[in-house]
Amino acid sequence: MNDLPQTPLLDTVKTPDDLRKLKTGQLRQLSDELREEMISAVGTTGGHLGSGLGVVELTVAIHYIFNTPEDRLIWDVGHQCYPHKILTGRRDRIRTLRQGGGLSGFTKRAESEYDPFGAAHSSTSISAALGFAIANKLNDRPGKAIAVIGDGAMSAGMAYEAMNNAEQAGNRLVVILNDNDMSIAPPVGGLSAYLARVVSSSEYLGLRSLASKVARRLSRRVHQSLGRAEEYTRGMVAGGTLFEELGFYYVGPIDGHNLDHLIPVLENVRDAKEGPVLVHVVTQKGKGYAPAENAADKYHGVQKFDVITGAQHKGPPGPAKYQDVFGETLSKLAETDDRICAITAAMPGGTGVDKFARAHPDRSFDVGIAEQHAVTFAAGLAAQGMRPFCAIYSTFLQRAYDQVVHDVAIQNLPVRFAIDRAGLVGADGATHAGSFDVTYLATLPNFVVMAAADEAELAHMTYTAAEYDDGPIAVRYPRGGGTGVGVPEVLEKLEIGKGRMVREGKKVAILSLGTRLAEALKAADALESKGLSTSVADLRFAKPLDEALIRKLLTTHEVAVTVEEGAVGGLGAHVLTLASDEGLIDAGLKLRTMRLPDRFQDQDKPEKQYDEARLNAEHIVETVLGALRWNETSKQSGASA
Amino acid sequence: MNDLPQTPLLDTVKTPDDLRKLKTGQLRQLSDELREEMISAVGTTGGHLGSGLGVVELTVAIHYIFNTPEDRLIWDVGHQCYPHKILTGRRDRIRTLRQGGGLSGFTKRAESEYDPFGAAHSSTSISAALGFAIANKLNDRPGKAIAVIGDGAMSAGMAYEAMNNAEQAGNRLVVILNDNDMSIAPPVGGLSAYLARVVSSSEYLGLRSLASKVARRLSRRVHQSLGRAEEYTRGMVAGGTLFEELGFYYVGPIDGHNLDHLIPVLENVRDAKEGPVLVHVVTQKGKGYAPAENAADKYHGVQKFDVITGAQHKGPPGPAKYQDVFGETLSKLAETDDRICAITAAMPGGTGVDKFARAHPDRSFDVGIAEQHAVTFAAGLAAQGMRPFCAIYSTFLQRAYDQVVHDVAIQNLPVRFAIDRAGLVGADGATHAGSFDVTYLATLPNFVVMAAADEAELAHMTYTAAEYDDGPIAVRYPRGGGTGVGVPEVLEKLEIGKGRMVREGKKVAILSLGTRLAEALKAADALESKGLSTSVADLRFAKPLDEALIRKLLTTHEVAVTVEEGAVGGLGAHVLTLASDEGLIDAGLKLRTMRLPDRFQDQDKPEKQYDEARLNAEHIVETVLGALRWNETSKQSGASA
Repeated sequence: MNDLPQTPLLDTVKTPDDLRKLKTGQLRQLSDELREEMISAVGTTGGHLGSGLGVVELTVAIHYIFNTPEDRLIWDVGHQCYPHKILTGRRDRIRTLRQGGGLSGFTKRAESEYDPFGAAHSSTSISAALGFAIANKLNDRPGKAIAVIGDGAMSAGMAYEAMNNAEQAGNRLVVILNDNDMSIAPPVGGLSAYLARVVSSSEYLGLRSLASKVARRLSRRVHQSLGRAEEYTRGMVAGGTLFEELGFYYVGPIDGHNLDHLIPVLENVRDAKEGPVLVHVVTQKGKGYAPAENAADKYHGVQKFDVITGAQHKGPPGPAKYQDVFGETLSKLAETDDRICAITAAMPGGTGVDKFARAHPDRSFDVGIAEQHAVTFAAGLAAQGMRPFCAIYSTFLQRAYDQVVHDVAIQNLPVRFAIDRAGLVGADGATHAGSFDVTYLATLPNFVVMAAADEAELAHMTYTAAEYDDGPIAVRYPRGGGTGVGVPEVLEKLEIGKGRMVREGKKVAILSLGTRLAEALKAADALESKGLSTSVADLRFAKPLDEALIRKLLTTHEVAVTVEEGAVGGLGAHVLTLASDEGLIDAGLKLRTMRLPDRFQDQDKPEKQYDEARLNAEHIVETVLGALRWNETSKQSGASA
Repeated sequence: MNDLPQTPLLDTVKTPDDLRKLKTGQLRQLSDELREEMISAVGTTGGHLGSGLGVVELTVAIHYIFNTPEDRLIWDVGHQCYPHKILTGRRDRIRTLRQGGGLSGFTKRAESEYDPFGAAHSSTSISAALGFAIANKLNDRPGKAIAVIGDGAMSAGMAYEAMNNAEQAGNRLVVILNDNDMSIAPPVGGLSAYLARVVSSSEYLGLRSLASKVARRLSRRVHQSLGRAEEYTRGMVAGGTLFEELGFYYVGPIDGHNLDHLIPVLENVRDAKEGPVLVHVVTQKGKGYAPAENAADKYHGVQKFDVITGAQHKGPPGPAKYQDVFGETLSKLAETDDRICAITAAMPGGTGVDKFARAHPDRSFDVGIAEQHAVTFAAGLAAQGMRPFCAIYSTFLQRAYDQVVHDVAIQNLPVRFAIDRAGLVGADGATHAGSFDVTYLATLPNFVVMAAADEAELAHMTYTAAEYDDGPIAVRYPRGGGTGVGVPEVLEKLEIGKGRMVREGKKVAILSLGTRLAEALKAADALESKGLSTSVADLRFAKPLDEALIRKLLTTHEVAVTVEEGAVGGLGAHVLTLASDEGLIDAGLKLRTMRLPDRFQDQDKPEKQYDEARLNAEHIVETVLGALRWNETSKQSGASA
């Protein structure tokens, strides 16, 4: 493993209170040690690296100037918070990041009073900060709220909604725009172009007169009617007109790695009599670690790595990832179908849309962190005859739920949804789990909802979705690698609402949706070994249900169990509803539904998460035996009851 | 009834093709007749009046200049589309607006090729238009996409997300900002203040040189590096810098009622070589009808009215509306609890927050059409010790689903949700129905989900929510007036997860959630008259379920029926899941779930909608008898089976 770095000054800083006792001149050394410690820690655990490296100095400066935790510091997304965690009493656990039982990879209220608001999804920080600021204002309590938000996160509508409402917070709200010209992928859109213009056309504030200039600007509001010309002149010098139009005092751009600039500017911002203030800080993702600086993705998310060389410890090559199977399949389909388009919301790599984009750049759209727009844009494309695929993680599709309902489902438009990261997701934890999509989609009229049991199924379902023009259709699949079955040369157009029998038995029926199928088959083996003949069906469709197949399975087997990687209200609920509607339960039906538990699960290895969720083979066996009131001593009578 | 207006010119215009044959000089008369026809129609049907009156000239001008339907015209929200409907072949049905079987009160794809994209929720038009524009671009087809969007709708994040992505559409996209300084309520926020500054500081374009000025501006892009000063100068003259920063060519502000200005400007915009173009049009809501112009709400939504006097035909006074019971109850609670805040997203009147705001202006927040921000702002308030109530219609809360999951539920923050318009909503139709909230909320860990059976229950639940600090809690209730039971002086803090028995019986159990309780009681009467002793429970909580009560009802009655005003996956699914988890269904259980049907229901009178949904007393009776396999001839055996 990597050697621990020498960090004599950092060792004296347990909390921000310690930090604030340092002299300004010591902050450079502290930042350097903090950066080394973070590199060392992430080398050990893997995780988000580039973003944290970019905000080392900013983190130090904020805690140095502001009175955390009374001043509320809210990191947008939170994946850049590792230096913050090190400085706020969590250094002793920093090498447990993203591990089961360890520190979360994001900010989290339960972890520390220095995390007043948890995150992981993008663009929530200004709204939350505004809540803190207004609460303090109402109670006449001291305390500012500081939101640190990246330029990528600024592309989301909710950041704009919050800015549009920010004026009422006055000087209690500080928004720090961390402009590294990059979110996870290179940025897109008008705002990004705007920021680039501001940065490129401005001399950096800084130099001798920086602090006094800023202080002067924050000391009085330019009078609206008289000051119009001056306002624009100001905009020309320092940019930021867009934010000023929305009611902010704009300060910047300033070099986010230069503590001599950061400290006096933040000091003035802290003491400003008016507000809200937006501080435009320019940083470099991956700053200070050569392998990260030189990588295209700036080491956004990394595996464990060797600190000296930067070499990441990739595991042995496994089966193709679901995301790549989707991207490659869609790309191939698009070769002969020029109606197919792919849309991603700032996740070209994670969704596999990057593969599509390389082959079909004109028909690939990265809209930025803007899921709402992505879905309604796709609806417009569909209404004009295209075959759009929205590739969005399950948890992020929540952000476009109204668009899914109002623009897609009600109008019955054939928008295709490729829902990655469905089910539990491992190290990213509860905020990234895709637990609710089956429930929130299958309740909608007109929707077809599929789940892929393996990568071959995903390819078939992608093809099926492409060919389906009768309304909205979704296919969900998990994070990570497939089962290894590979993708067949010839794809099959599935019949809508038809499942498939994977294994024929007589006594027990397992109705599986999605990739728990492998566990269902293991469970079937175990049940067979107890003399319990077991059928396994892959239902493929949560909606419409394969009613004939389900009816048959429920009525010809002694016990039936549904298995899905989703929360209550999904497949199991729909099967129960069918059984109830048809009166199948009237005469007695041993039917159980296995689903995710009714709690948010913390990060862990996926297999442990599924264990905790009781969705592995042994739990399926237990559930079946429980329904049969089976015990080993009474198994003869139990089994034939 | 009102006399039909004389409309000789309008009578010759059946479609926009006819319109385009007119001389420009005839458009004034046509507009006047169109306005009269619209006033007459809405006088007959009731509906949205002020918004349509504000866009009469704009509607005429757009259809005159653009080649609809090949050019795609998308009205944001769509409640201003009545003049558009009259001009696009639907005049013969215009007096069926919002009636059962009649024209929708919004744009609707199924109605006309001139409605390329339906709406009703706000702020979707630019995203959709972009989809049309890009589809045409990809296919090298002619046809522009024109989005008409109000200044209020511009406060929603998705409009910003779309603008941020608009540049790629080039001159195929035209956005017409219909600035009437008012959505439903007066506008709020930084953008609104910005628009007001633009309008107040600009001389209106117009006058002699208008058309040539516009043409000159659209003929070439100001060069970025050289043209910076000029760009700002331009901004100072004509405003619009904010939109230009996002990549638009800005034109305006222009008088939206002056056809001599509108026609040449739109002509130039149509022929612009570059784009996208944003045309800033200033209109007056309610224009041309004195009673509307003089009313505070500009006759946004009206009952049938007398055209001469403007007097609306209010029905007889009924019981207090749920929204007012909520607003007044909360306001009263806030007198002794200064932690209580109320948040509305541009619906102060509709949610009853206006009543709260009058008494507690400091703790009342209208955030504009910005549900995402509303919810996370509330989460921030809650995290800082306040007791925030988000009052949002069920269908609009969909727009904040991710914030509900990620910022509220995962963090288990005590944000209170007052969910109005739950269930079917009558004349507003499918887009406004609150069908899914129980499903999409009760699937979330940590959530408490209540439904009020009457206005007294709503008051108790509002109090219960205020006092509940352990996590998120929601209360849902329908549109319109209560049952007349009134609101008790002393409010009761309900025990979380406990229902109540409303009627004790022996054979049949009806498990009701929400205001179908009245129908459940009627059904019980009918069942009793057949000799079927019937229990009726008001479960109050969809989550957590009153497991003890449900268990008892299911095991001590011969048949049980759940009744709810929501789609599949809600209460019924949760009761079935409980019954399955506990093995209650193993030995046979006559349990049925009554819920909204799996289709989007068009507008009609609410009682007819519930009839169509089969959720009235007679359907409950039918369901019970069906489960009992009851028929009148064999009732003795059936009833005692």
